[in-house]
Amino acid sequence: MIKAGIIGATGYAGGELVRILLGHKDVEIKWYGSRSYIDKKYADVYQNMFQLVEDTCLDDNIEALADQVDVIFTATPQGFLAGLLTEEILSKAKVIDLSADYRIKDVSVYEAWYKLEHKSPQFLPEAVYGLCEQNREAIKKARLVANPGCYPTCSFLSIAPLARAGYIDMKTLIIDAKSGTSGAGRGAKVDNLYCEVNENIKAYGVASHRHTPEIEEQLSYVAGEPVTLNFTPHLVPMNRGILITAYANVREGVTEEMLRGAYEEAYGQERFVRFLAPGVCPQTKWVEGSNFVDVNVVYDGRTGRVIMLGAMDNLVKGAAGQAVQNMNLMFGLPEDMGLTLVPMFP
Amino acid sequence: MIKAGIIGATGYAGGELVRILLGHKDVEIKWYGSRSYIDKKYADVYQNMFQLVEDTCLDDNIEALADQVDVIFTATPQGFLAGLLTEEILSKAKVIDLSADYRIKDVSVYEAWYKLEHKSPQFLPEAVYGLCEQNREAIKKARLVANPGCYPTCSFLSIAPLARAGYIDMKTLIIDAKSGTSGAGRGAKVDNLYCEVNENIKAYGVASHRHTPEIEEQLSYVAGEPVTLNFTPHLVPMNRGILITAYANVREGVTEEMLRGAYEEAYGQERFVRFLAPGVCPQTKWVEGSNFVDVNVVYDGRTGRVIMLGAMDNLVKGAAGQAVQNMNLMFGLPEDMGLTLVPMFP
Amino acid sequence: MIKAGIIGATGYAGGELVRILLGHKDVEIKWYGSRSYIDKKYADVYQNMFQLVEDTCLDDNIEALADQVDVIFTATPQGFLAGLLTEEILSKAKVIDLSADYRIKDVSVYEAWYKLEHKSPQFLPEAVYGLCEQNREAIKKARLVANPGCYPTCSFLSIAPLARAGYIDMKTLIIDAKSGTSGAGRGAKVDNLYCEVNENIKAYGVASHRHTPEIEEQLSYVAGEPVTLNFTPHLVPMNRGILITAYANVREGVTEEMLRGAYEEAYGQERFVRFLAPGVCPQTKWVEGSNFVDVNVVYDGRTGRVIMLGAMDNLVKGAAGQAVQNMNLMFGLPEDMGLTLVPMFP
Amino acid sequence: MIKAGIIGATGYAGGELVRILLGHKDVEIKWYGSRSYIDKKYADVYQNMFQLVEDTCLDDNIEALADQVDVIFTATPQGFLAGLLTEEILSKAKVIDLSADYRIKDVSVYEAWYKLEHKSPQFLPEAVYGLCEQNREAIKKARLVANPGCYPTCSFLSIAPLARAGYIDMKTLIIDAKSGTSGAGRGAKVDNLYCEVNENIKAYGVASHRHTPEIEEQLSYVAGEPVTLNFTPHLVPMNRGILITAYANVREGVTEEMLRGAYEEAYGQERFVRFLAPGVCPQTKWVEGSNFVDVNVVYDGRTGRVIMLGAMDNLVKGAAGQAVQNMNLMFGLPEDMGLTLVPMFP
Repeated sequence: MIKAGIIGATGYAGGELVRILLGHKDVEIKWYGSRSYIDKKYADVYQNMFQLVEDTCLDDNIEALADQVDVIFTATPQGFLAGLLTEEILSKAKVIDLSADYRIKDVSVYEAWYKLEHKSPQFLPEAVYGLCEQNREAIKKARLVANPGCYPTCSFLSIAPLARAGYIDMKTLIIDAKSGTSGAGRGAKVDNLYCEVNENIKAYGVASHRHTPEIEEQLSYVAGEPVTLNFTPHLVPMNRGILITAYANVREGVTEEMLRGAYEEAYGQERFVRFLAPGVCPQTKWVEGSNFVDVNVVYDGRTGRVIMLGAMDNLVKGAAGQAVQNMNLMFGLPEDMGLTLVPMFP
Repeated sequence: MIKAGIIGATGYAGGELVRILLGHKDVEIKWYGSRSYIDKKYADVYQNMFQLVEDTCLDDNIEALADQVDVIFTATPQGFLAGLLTEEILSKAKVIDLSADYRIKDVSVYEAWYKLEHKSPQFLPEAVYGLCEQNREAIKKARLVANPGCYPTCSFLSIAPLARAGYIDMKTLIIDAKSGTSGAGRGAKVDNLYCEVNENIKAYGVASHRHTPEIEEQLSYVAGEPVTLNFTPHLVPMNRGILITAYANVREGVTEEMLRGAYEEAYGQERFVRFLAPGVCPQTKWVEGSNFVDVNVVYDGRTGRVIMLGAMDNLVKGAAGQAVQNMNLMFGLPEDMGLTLVPMFP
Repeated sequence: MIKAGIIGATGYAGGELVRILLGHKDVEIKWYGSRSYIDKKYADVYQNMFQLVEDTCLDDNIEALADQVDVIFTATPQGFLAGLLTEEILSKAKVIDLSADYRIKDVSVYEAWYKLEHKSPQFLPEAVYGLCEQNREAIKKARLVANPGCYPTCSFLSIAPLARAGYIDMKTLIIDAKSGTSGAGRGAKVDNLYCEVNENIKAYGVASHRHTPEIEEQLSYVAGEPVTLNFTPHLVPMNRGILITAYANVREGVTEEMLRGAYEEAYGQERFVRFLAPGVCPQTKWVEGSNFVDVNVVYDGRTGRVIMLGAMDNLVKGAAGQAVQNMNLMFGLPEDMGLTLVPMFP
Repeated sequence: MIKAGIIGATGYAGGELVRILLGHKDVEIKWYGSRSYIDKKYADVYQNMFQLVEDTCLDDNIEALADQVDVIFTATPQGFLAGLLTEEILSKAKVIDLSADYRIKDVSVYEAWYKLEHKSPQFLPEAVYGLCEQNREAIKKARLVANPGCYPTCSFLSIAPLARAGYIDMKTLIIDAKSGTSGAGRGAKVDNLYCEVNENIKAYGVASHRHTPEIEEQLSYVAGEPVTLNFTPHLVPMNRGILITAYANVREGVTEEMLRGAYEEAYGQERFVRFLAPGVCPQTKWVEGSNFVDVNVVYDGRTGRVIMLGAMDNLVKGAAGQAVQNMNLMFGLPEDMGLTLVPMFP
């Protein structure tokens, strides 16, 4: 039985980790960390856990935690883990970080986009970017996994097959993304009130969203060239779900068959990425509550562009589900253990 | 391995049965019946099942089906099963009917409220009303289970403890119910279009909803007297969830402690009914996707009334989940098998 | 041209006042008071007002304001106006208070339910309860109007005709109310975040909501007897709208015709209360954005009860619209001036 | 007093026409045409109109109608008007067509995208494309106005200033659009049921949506060159609103100041197009219920692209509001008459 601790257990991603781990046969949660709710019963914060979780929220003493558990999940604000992580902690427990602290290899890029000084850049080289479908083998051996951002996960999986195959002109890549509101977290802000979000759609972080360099870095690895792109997220009136609509010019000589072939090759053996039939558009509702990413591609002969589409539950494959997938890999468990959640519809 | 067949597999309740049974270790679905989608791939109707269900929809030949499976779920319109059921079918397979055909013992009451002639009243005596918490032992021996309606399930479980204890005046009972839209089914009707339901709330079926006699009958058994009550359902702009707010005068001499005691006694050992702490109001979101019913009671000393509250996912405990709970009982399996779904929040 | 000032102009009710007054030919808003946004452009707080309002938010100096305007609207927290109101202010400007400070005549009742000391009870006798359909003549002469609460407005208008006629047993009266989320205000609270409200319904303030004594007081005037009732509000995932479902036993000898007659008499001449045709249930969407209240009544012969139904936009007739209706009466203008808003559907 | 007739008065666009025209001082609706609801009271179809409209629905006899009214609005399926329009009708009444029949000058393009034979191409030359901000003078003299599509209106107004100024490379233009569900009409289809749309987002009509050639044609006029672009619409769980996010490469030498200048020049004098302050993203909620289009532009120096943003109420400026704006122009009335609706928030 793997003993797990969660720091940031009362945020939406933390709560989803609890939901998923409760259904994982080989894991026991030993520590529900929550700075905001210390000494409060966890099930009083999330009443869905009534009679399912009897524990009380603890503080975020990561050193004490490392002594008691095998794996630590940090679902915390940027900068938190970077400020606390030590070799000693890593020597005692594996760490899966749901924040951005170790996602970007170039510390100056991190600091420029996040407006934060990175307090422990020494761990950047060993941190593995936890996109399981891409870095599976490295994750298996990792002590420290940087769990990918929600937008980067869905963007990467939607685009990578064509980037890797060299079928698109990376200079023309544009990502238009749409997300449910849980991605904004559980903080009490006017902008996230029901009445402000409901019956509304807006773009935000235009040309400045922090997930941009993360997407660029990961795509540059598979494309084999530096990537600079436009990424525009939008806030959609729904709780869960991310939809990616990406555009790029197709290179000369690439046929529709080749395009579909690239996805089939990439995802034919993947449990969690479903390449849909021709003409079927991914919908976030079709993956809700599950670890699936549904992707598809449309070629537009009129313009010579492809439209790459991807849908995902931002709290599962975009956060907690992928974190558990990473944990499974790190501990030698079947990759889909605890993750066989069937999407809930409607 | 239990072999199961579903007739009406492409309605919302049918789809939920598929979702739940896919996670049930001892069941295999052998027949996806759907009159509307014969020969179409099931996963083309419900794309969430892509790569999870490879089967094609079949017709609703219940006799052929009875030869092939151990249990038949009928998630069909009222009158369908009553028109087809035979002793031969029941001798071959157990039947769990999600329609109202065998819920009401008095055939004249059924015919009056449903405006239908009942074609097989001979099965009414043996049919067991499948409210597991109430009729557990009878269900274990049943061949034919009438799976309760969504409103009756939530109403009964919210009110029964006080009715049984004789703590409330049943003549004063009023049930004000609120339901998400999936309860209205997947039929294409203007009234259920997104733009008609969204940003709207209305009562419907006022003083005439068909679930009224079902609730009255079941409560009369535990109250030991005939019950006539007001039941008013409302349509709420959300997919899933039922909330019951019920009112009744408390009998003289009944204390708050006695009220809470009645619920504790009724549900202390129940896995799926959660009696909340004093002052906590049930919320449908806290049980979404799970088989739980959350109930609570508030005593109002000013008026001498209790307010009984209950929340439930109408597609799970109110339909497919309870059907699987019934199946588990009928086949001697652990009652919660395949039903340990953790509520999804947010 | 009437000069108007608003204190609390950046709450939802305040914003709605601005929306309505911008369409009122005889009013000019001279003061946008907002403690939270002093010196900020009003249209930067509410971007819908871009190019429509050029003013900057001012503080809430009610004495300075009284010198400059003819009417002051206070859309402020309970206790605010009671703490500041003076004879001098009232001698200079008419005041329409959207808070509860002057709604309840018995100061001890106010203090018990609101847990506040009332700082200016001397104005209670002269304050007129601004339910226009009930107190029209008194409002015309008032200097200080207590604009009714949202739930009380809809409850009263739905029930008053039968209470006034003596057709129902007031001891059996139960009000089950449902409200959109704008009623909870624009404060940044976790409970009102999009993800907490969406796909959810719950009761709140059960047996303890502050609008209870207000409803009881107003109904007691028309019933001619003290009224004690149950009032249970629910939070519905929508922005606007209140629906009332009220229950009471009908007195012997009262026929359906008499029931409908009571409503026809009460509302036959009223512009803003629409008594619907038999069998039509009020829906909040049918009145959205308008000053209408739609009411209807259903008699249930099985139980001897009536179900009284009412739907209203909580921000219009339940707040800002009724405030403007009161203003029109106080200044001798046509009662519907600026209020001929057609409900917006869908 | 202008006498108006509406054919297709019971669709969402037709209903919105009624809402707006009821508030127009110089118009009287004489004919509520609705093939589906002949002889039914209009207010029984749209209960929001109870006591506001006493008329009964009539058939769609356009010749009889032309004898009785000054202006005919057709909010009908594609092909309807083209199949009926005659010189005689046009000689008696002005016609504003909300369908696509006369929007596209090249009949072969219309027929290819709409899969319909055009039955009256002889009227295409005289039909004026009713985008008021672009074709104001021609509209004033028109007998037949083709009211623009919702997506084309918002797309054109968001992009035209830069296209006209030659500041962007039209070959790189990509439009990613998001629409509320009312755009899909009031037909009873499973895809538009509440439970299918709610908590979901999807792209549809990828590389094949019929508004594509309409946008291309109109932009080609202002760009002075043929335009071929990608247009991808998405269905958003909300009733009203369209948001456009468009991308294009900026031509060398174009500065941010020049970009903003182009919008200021285009819209500085326009009542209904609001060019927002730098950094403010348009939101559909800020324009709901009004005839405004909010636009803005962001320059991304990293990629050399502009992101052009526009938000609009699809039923107002995207349909009925623009139709009334056209009518005002055609009849010499102030352009904003009946259209001074303040956006409703929240």
